[in-house]
Amino acid sequence: MKWKRSERLVDMTRYLIEHPHTLVPLTYFAERYNAAKSSISEDLSIVKETFEAVGMGSLVTLSGASGGVRFIPKVSEEKTHEVIEQLISELGQTDRLLPGGYLFLTDLLGKPQLMNQIGKIFASHFAEQSIDVIMTVATKGIPIAHAIARHLNVPVVIVRQDSKVTEGSTVSINYVSGSTGRIQTMALSKRSMKSGQRVLLTDDFMKAGGTMVGMKNLLKEFECELAGIAVLVEADHPSQTLIDDYVSLVRLSGVDEQRQTIELQQGNIFNY
Amino acid sequence: MKWKRSERLVDMTRYLIEHPHTLVPLTYFAERYNAAKSSISEDLSIVKETFEAVGMGSLVTLSGASGGVRFIPKVSEEKTHEVIEQLISELGQTDRLLPGGYLFLTDLLGKPQLMNQIGKIFASHFAEQSIDVIMTVATKGIPIAHAIARHLNVPVVIVRQDSKVTEGSTVSINYVSGSTGRIQTMALSKRSMKSGQRVLLTDDFMKAGGTMVGMKNLLKEFECELAGIAVLVEADHPSQTLIDDYVSLVRLSGVDEQRQTIELQQGNIFNY
Repeated sequence: MKWKRSERLVDMTRYLIEHPHTLVPLTYFAERYNAAKSSISEDLSIVKETFEAVGMGSLVTLSGASGGVRFIPKVSEEKTHEVIEQLISELGQTDRLLPGGYLFLTDLLGKPQLMNQIGKIFASHFAEQSIDVIMTVATKGIPIAHAIARHLNVPVVIVRQDSKVTEGSTVSINYVSGSTGRIQTMALSKRSMKSGQRVLLTDDFMKAGGTMVGMKNLLKEFECELAGIAVLVEADHPSQTLIDDYVSLVRLSGVDEQRQTIELQQGNIFNY
Repeated sequence: MKWKRSERLVDMTRYLIEHPHTLVPLTYFAERYNAAKSSISEDLSIVKETFEAVGMGSLVTLSGASGGVRFIPKVSEEKTHEVIEQLISELGQTDRLLPGGYLFLTDLLGKPQLMNQIGKIFASHFAEQSIDVIMTVATKGIPIAHAIARHLNVPVVIVRQDSKVTEGSTVSINYVSGSTGRIQTMALSKRSMKSGQRVLLTDDFMKAGGTMVGMKNLLKEFECELAGIAVLVEADHPSQTLIDDYVSLVRLSGVDEQRQTIELQQGNIFNY
C-alpha cells in the first residue's frame, strides 16, 4: 500500500491515541508507511500542532538513534472545568441522597464516555510523575482506575475485601474504616506488584480516608511507593481526615438528609 | 482558528474515535472547522478510506437533513486471531493454574491496552445488534464490560454478590452456582435499567454457566431482553452447560492439576 500524506495523518493520529505514553520510533512509521523519515517528521509536526491547538495533549519528540515520539494526553483547564460542572450538576439531584450521607454514583461510574474524560483529567494531572501501577479497591473504583490507566499506559491492580480462589495467594491486612470505626480486611494478589513500583491510588468516594490508609499500608507490605491519590468525590467529615495529600474533582461539603439538600463544590484539583 | 485540511483530518479522526456509534451531523464538523460541507464530505471520505484500509472500522454516512456520519469500530479477522494467539500463549503458562481448575487471569484483566483490544473485538462482533446496556458481575468482569461499552457507546451495569448502601434499593435473586451447586445471591441497583432494554452479558470466565443463568433471571426481573453473551475464557465442564448461545475468545479444554498442564484453544467467535 502506498500511503498519501492525508492517509498517514489519519492513521498516525489513530495509532498515537491508542498508544499514549509510549515511545514510538520514527522508523516504525517510516516502515509502516514506506516513507522517508523527513516526510514522517513533517507529518508529526502537523499532528503535534493540531493536538496542541485543540488542547488534547502534546507530542514529545526524542531525537537520536533511540529517538521517537511520545503522545502525552492532556486535558485543558477549560475542559476540566466543564467536566466538573457537569458532575456537580448531575450529583446535585436530590434523589441521589442515600442513608448515611452517601451519594448514589453507580450510574455515573457506568458511563464510558464520562469515565474516559475523568480518566484523562487525572492522567493529565499526573502526566509528569513516574507511575508504574494504578491501585483501587473493588468495586466502584475499578472504572476510574481503568480509565486513568489507559491514558497513562500502566496496569491496574484491584484490592478486594474478600479473597477468592481466582486471586491465587494474597497478602491481606486489617484496617479501620474511618467512617464506621470497624475493623475490615483487604487483600491483594501476591503477584500483582513488584517491590519498588510507584503506585497511584484511586477511588470514587473518600470520606474519612480509612480505605486509602488501608491501601497505603498494603503498599508497605509490597515495598512499593505512593505516587499520588486521585478521588472523584471527597466528602467533608467531622473528625480528622486520615489523608491529606490527594486530588479530587468534586467536594461534597454538606448533606442534609432531613431537608434533602446536597452541597457540592469543585474539588481541589485546581489548587495544585 | 482557520483549519487546514491536514489539521481537520487529525482532529476528525480524534473526534470520531472518541465518539463511536454516535451520529455526528455534518454541520457539527462544518461549524467546528468553519468549512463548507463539501470540504467536510471530502475529508470524511479520506478518513473512511483510511479506516477501512487499516481495518479499524467503517464510517457510515446518512444523507438528508438529519444526516451525518457514524463511526463503527471493527476489528479485522487477522487482528482478532493475533489477540487470541497472544491470550492463548499468556494463559498457557503453568503458573496460572489455581486449585479447582481455575486460571489466574487477574494480571491480564489489569492491562488496559489488552482490555481495549478485547473490548473492541466484542464490540465489533456485536456492532450490528441493537444493544442498550452491558451487564457484568463484580469483580473481574468489570474491565471487559467497560472496554466493550466504550466501543459501543452504551452504559455498564454491575451486578454484585453483596448489597452495599451505595447501591440504593436493589433487586436481588438467588441462583445456583453451576460449578459448586451452592445457592448464591446477586443484586442489582433498581435504578440501573429500564424495562425493554436490550442487554449484552459479559464475564471473564464461564464454566458451567450458573452466573450467566443468574444474570438472565435478573433480566426477567427488570423486563429486559438478552442481546448476547460474551465471555473471555470458556472452560469445558463435565456436566451439562447451562448456557449455549455465547461468544468466547478462548476455550480451556483441559487442566491437569497433577501434571500441571493447561490445554487451550480458540473460542467459538469464528463459528459465527
